[in-house]
Amino acid sequence: MNYKSLAHFTALILLVEAVLMLPAFVLSLVFHEPGSTDAYLKTLLIILILGGLLWLLSRGEKANDFYEKEGLACAGISWLILGLTGALPFFLSGQIPAYVDAVFETVSGFTTTGASILPEVESMDKSLLYWRSFTHWVGGMGVLVFLLALVPRSRGGAGFTVHILRAESPGPDVGKLVPQLRKTAQLLYLIYIGLTVIDIVLLAFDMPLFDAFCIAFGTAGTGGFAVTNAGLGGYSPYIQWVTTVFMFLFGVNFSCYYLLLKKRPGSVLRDEELHTYAFVYLAASLIIAFSVRSYFGTAEETLRHAFFQAASIMSTTGFATTDFNLWTTLAKGILVFLMILGASAGSTGGGLKCMRLNLILKDLRSNLREMIRPGRIYPVRSNGKPVNPSVLTALRTYLSAYVLIVLTSFLILCIDGKDLTTSITAVLACFNNIGPGLSEVGPMSNYGALSVLSKIVLIFDMLAGRLEIFPMIALISRTTWRHE
Amino acid sequence: MNYKSLAHFTALILLVEAVLMLPAFVLSLVFHEPGSTDAYLKTLLIILILGGLLWLLSRGEKANDFYEKEGLACAGISWLILGLTGALPFFLSGQIPAYVDAVFETVSGFTTTGASILPEVESMDKSLLYWRSFTHWVGGMGVLVFLLALVPRSRGGAGFTVHILRAESPGPDVGKLVPQLRKTAQLLYLIYIGLTVIDIVLLAFDMPLFDAFCIAFGTAGTGGFAVTNAGLGGYSPYIQWVTTVFMFLFGVNFSCYYLLLKKRPGSVLRDEELHTYAFVYLAASLIIAFSVRSYFGTAEETLRHAFFQAASIMSTTGFATTDFNLWTTLAKGILVFLMILGASAGSTGGGLKCMRLNLILKDLRSNLREMIRPGRIYPVRSNGKPVNPSVLTALRTYLSAYVLIVLTSFLILCIDGKDLTTSITAVLACFNNIGPGLSEVGPMSNYGALSVLSKIVLIFDMLAGRLEIFPMIALISRTTWRHE
Repeated sequence: MNYKSLAHFTALILLVEAVLMLPAFVLSLVFHEPGSTDAYLKTLLIILILGGLLWLLSRGEKANDFYEKEGLACAGISWLILGLTGALPFFLSGQIPAYVDAVFETVSGFTTTGASILPEVESMDKSLLYWRSFTHWVGGMGVLVFLLALVPRSRGGAGFTVHILRAESPGPDVGKLVPQLRKTAQLLYLIYIGLTVIDIVLLAFDMPLFDAFCIAFGTAGTGGFAVTNAGLGGYSPYIQWVTTVFMFLFGVNFSCYYLLLKKRPGSVLRDEELHTYAFVYLAASLIIAFSVRSYFGTAEETLRHAFFQAASIMSTTGFATTDFNLWTTLAKGILVFLMILGASAGSTGGGLKCMRLNLILKDLRSNLREMIRPGRIYPVRSNGKPVNPSVLTALRTYLSAYVLIVLTSFLILCIDGKDLTTSITAVLACFNNIGPGLSEVGPMSNYGALSVLSKIVLIFDMLAGRLEIFPMIALISRTTWRHE
Repeated sequence: MNYKSLAHFTALILLVEAVLMLPAFVLSLVFHEPGSTDAYLKTLLIILILGGLLWLLSRGEKANDFYEKEGLACAGISWLILGLTGALPFFLSGQIPAYVDAVFETVSGFTTTGASILPEVESMDKSLLYWRSFTHWVGGMGVLVFLLALVPRSRGGAGFTVHILRAESPGPDVGKLVPQLRKTAQLLYLIYIGLTVIDIVLLAFDMPLFDAFCIAFGTAGTGGFAVTNAGLGGYSPYIQWVTTVFMFLFGVNFSCYYLLLKKRPGSVLRDEELHTYAFVYLAASLIIAFSVRSYFGTAEETLRHAFFQAASIMSTTGFATTDFNLWTTLAKGILVFLMILGASAGSTGGGLKCMRLNLILKDLRSNLREMIRPGRIYPVRSNGKPVNPSVLTALRTYLSAYVLIVLTSFLILCIDGKDLTTSITAVLACFNNIGPGLSEVGPMSNYGALSVLSKIVLIFDMLAGRLEIFPMIALISRTTWRHE
C-alpha cells in the first residue's frame, strides 16, 4: 500500500469538500442562522486543519506507483471521510444530536440513498437542508469524478485516473468512456449540470426557488431527500410529473447523452440497456397502476402515482407522493423487484443495474445452451460485441458479494427485533441506495428508531452499494494493507 | 432429441412406480379401506396401460445416442410424470377433491418438500398417508438412482447412466462417485436403507409402528409430512431428539458414509463441507436457543426446540414441534438464512447446499485478491484440490437461475394478495424443498388457501429445486426440442 499517495489524495478530497461546503455556509449567513454559521465555521476549520496535516505528511514523490489496490482503497476511504466530516454541521449545530445519526444522514446523502433518521425536516435550518440535498447532487456523479474534472492530469500518475474512475463509476464496464478521461469527466459534469438546470427552471414555475434547487439536487443525484414533511406529496401534479420525467432521465446511462451530443442518435436507439430500462419501467408502472386503481379517484391520479413511484424506486431516488406501504401486495412486490434491479449503469442511480440483468440473462442462456449441447459455443454478446470473460467473472464476484452482504446485514438487523419485512427492505433500500423501504421503514416512516448497530451496518451497506462493493471490501481486506 | 429413448425411459419409470405403489395398495386391503383400494386399482391400471403403450411405441434400437440433452429432459419428464400419476390415488379416492391439490401434495412428497394443502391429516385413509410419506423416501435418494441400482447396465448406453445421475444428483459435483455407477448406486441405497431401518427401530420404542415407518420415511428423505395434525409436537421429547439426530444425519453428504464404509475416516473428518454444515448448524441452534429462551420453561425444552427446528429447516425436512412463526425476528431471520443455505451436496436435503456456499466464499476471496493485486493468480481449492473452472461457471449459472426463478415466482405469488412474508417464504420453502414457510404458510398453517396459479408455480419451484434447476429449464427450452 502506497500510504503517501493515499494521504495526499485524502487531503485533496478534504479541500474539495471545504469548497463544496461554502455555498451552504453563505446561505446560513443569508438566512440569519447563527447556530449553523457557527457549525459551518468549526467544520471548515476542522477539515482544513486535517487536510493541511495530511498534505504536509504526504509531500514528496508518490503518485507514480498507483495501482488497482490504491484506487480501490482511495475510493473507499475518501467516501468514508466525506461522510464523517460532512456530518459535522448537523452534529455541531445540535440539530441532529447523535453523531451516528448525523453520519447516517450524511452518508445517506452522499451515496444518494435518501434514507433519513429525521422524523420531521421543516424545523431544521434552511442552510442545513440545502447542504443535505447538495450532498445528493455531489454524490450522484461522484466526488472523485469531480476531482478528475478539476485537477490537471499531471497531479496523478497514469494509473491514478483510470483506477479511481473504475472504482467509483457504477456499472460493470466503463470502457466506452475511458480514453481522454479528464475531458470525458468534464463533459459528463456539463451534461449533469445542464440537465439539473433545466429541472430547476421547470420546477421553479410552481414552487419556491429554494425548494426547486433542493428537489432538483435530490432528483439529479437520484437521492430522495425532500425539504417538507409531506415529501413530494405536498406539491402540485405538475411538479410530480416533471419530477417523474427527470427521475427517469437521470436513471439513463449518461453515455447515451454523451453519444447524443456526439450526434450519434442511432447507437442510442439501439442501446440494449436503454431498451431493458424503458421496457421494465413501462411494464412495472402499468401493472402497478392496474393493481392500485381502486385507491385513487381519477385515472390521471392513478397513473401519476404509479409512474412516479416506479420511476422513484427504479431510479433509486426514493421520493414518495403517497404511502405505498399501504398498496396491494402485487404493487409492493413489483417495487421490491425494482429496488433490487435499479437503474442503468453509468447513471446516477444505484441497484444491480439493467446492464447486469441483461448480462445475467444472456450468460444464463448461453451456459444453458452449452449444457444442453456440449461442444458448441454460444458467446455472450452485448450491443453486438462479444463480452470479455473477465467481465463475466467480475459479474459472478459481484453477485456473490451482493448476496452475502445482504444476507449478513439482514441477520444483524434481525437482532433489532423489527419485523422481517422491515429488516430485509431496510437492507435492500440502503444497499441499493433507494431510501424508503416497507413496513417500519416505509415512505411515511424513518430510520430513527433502529439501533446504533443497525445504523452502522446500514451506513456500510449504503457505501458498499454506491461504490459497487469492491472498494469497501478492499478497505477491510488484509491483502490491501499487507506490507511489501 | 431422441424421442424413442425418452419414451422408453418414461415407460420404465411408470413400471417402477407401479411396483413402488404395491405396498400402499396392500395396506389399503389390510386396513379395510375400500375407497382407497379402488383408487389404487384404477391408478395401477392407468399407469400400466400408459407404460405399456410407451413401451410398444419405443421398441427398436435407441439407447446409443443418449447425451446431456436427453439426460436432462428424462429427469425433468420422469419427475413430472411421477407427480401427475402419483397424485391419482388421492384424487380418485376423493380424499383430495381438486386434482391440482393432489398433484401439489404428491410433487411435494417426491421432491421431499413436505408442503401440504391439507388442513388436517388424521381423517385420511392410512394407506394414503403411507403412500404420502413413502413418496418422501423414494424421492429422497432419487427415483432414477433407484432405477440405476435395479436395471442392468446393458439396458442403457454408456451415456445413459452418467447423464441421468448427473441430472438428478444434488450438489455441484458428483465426481467422486461416478466410476462403477451401478455398484455405487446400490451401495448408496444400502446406506440409505440401513440408516432408515435404525431410525424406525429407535422410533418404534415410543410410538406406533405405522407412525414410526411414516416419520422415518419423512426424516430419511428430508421430506416433512407427518401423520398427525400436531406434527412432531405431539410426540415425546425422546422421539423429538431422535428425529433431530437423524434429520442432521440425512443432511450429511452420503459420500461421507461411503468413505466410512471404505474405512477412510480421516478424509471424512477433513471434509470441508462437513465442517461448514456442522459449524453453521451448531451456531444457528445456539443463537436461536438464546434468542427464544424466554418462550420455554426449562433449558432442555429450549434447546430441544432450537436444535430440532434448526435441523429441520437446515436439512430441509420441515417437521415442526412448535409454531416458530411466533418466535423472535432474529430466530426467524436465522431460519430464513438456513432455508436458503440448506443441507450438504449429495445428501437427501435441498437448498443451495453448504458445498456451494464454500465455493462461493472461496471464489469470492480469490477474485477479490486478484482484483486488488492484478497479475497474481489465487486458484480456488476444495478439500485441497484445485476446482475446475467449469464448476465455477456452472455455479454462476446456478446462482443466476436461482435468483431469477425465485424473483419471478415471488412476483406471481404476489398476485394472490397474501402478505410479502408469505409470498417470499412460500417460494423459498418450496424451491428449497423445506415445506413450511412463515406467516400464512407457517408451520401451523398450510398451502390450501393459495390460488391455482400460485400452486402451479410452486409445483414448478419444488421440481426445479429438487432437480437443481437445469432439467426443468431444459424441459421448457426450445434448444432441447429443436429437430435436427
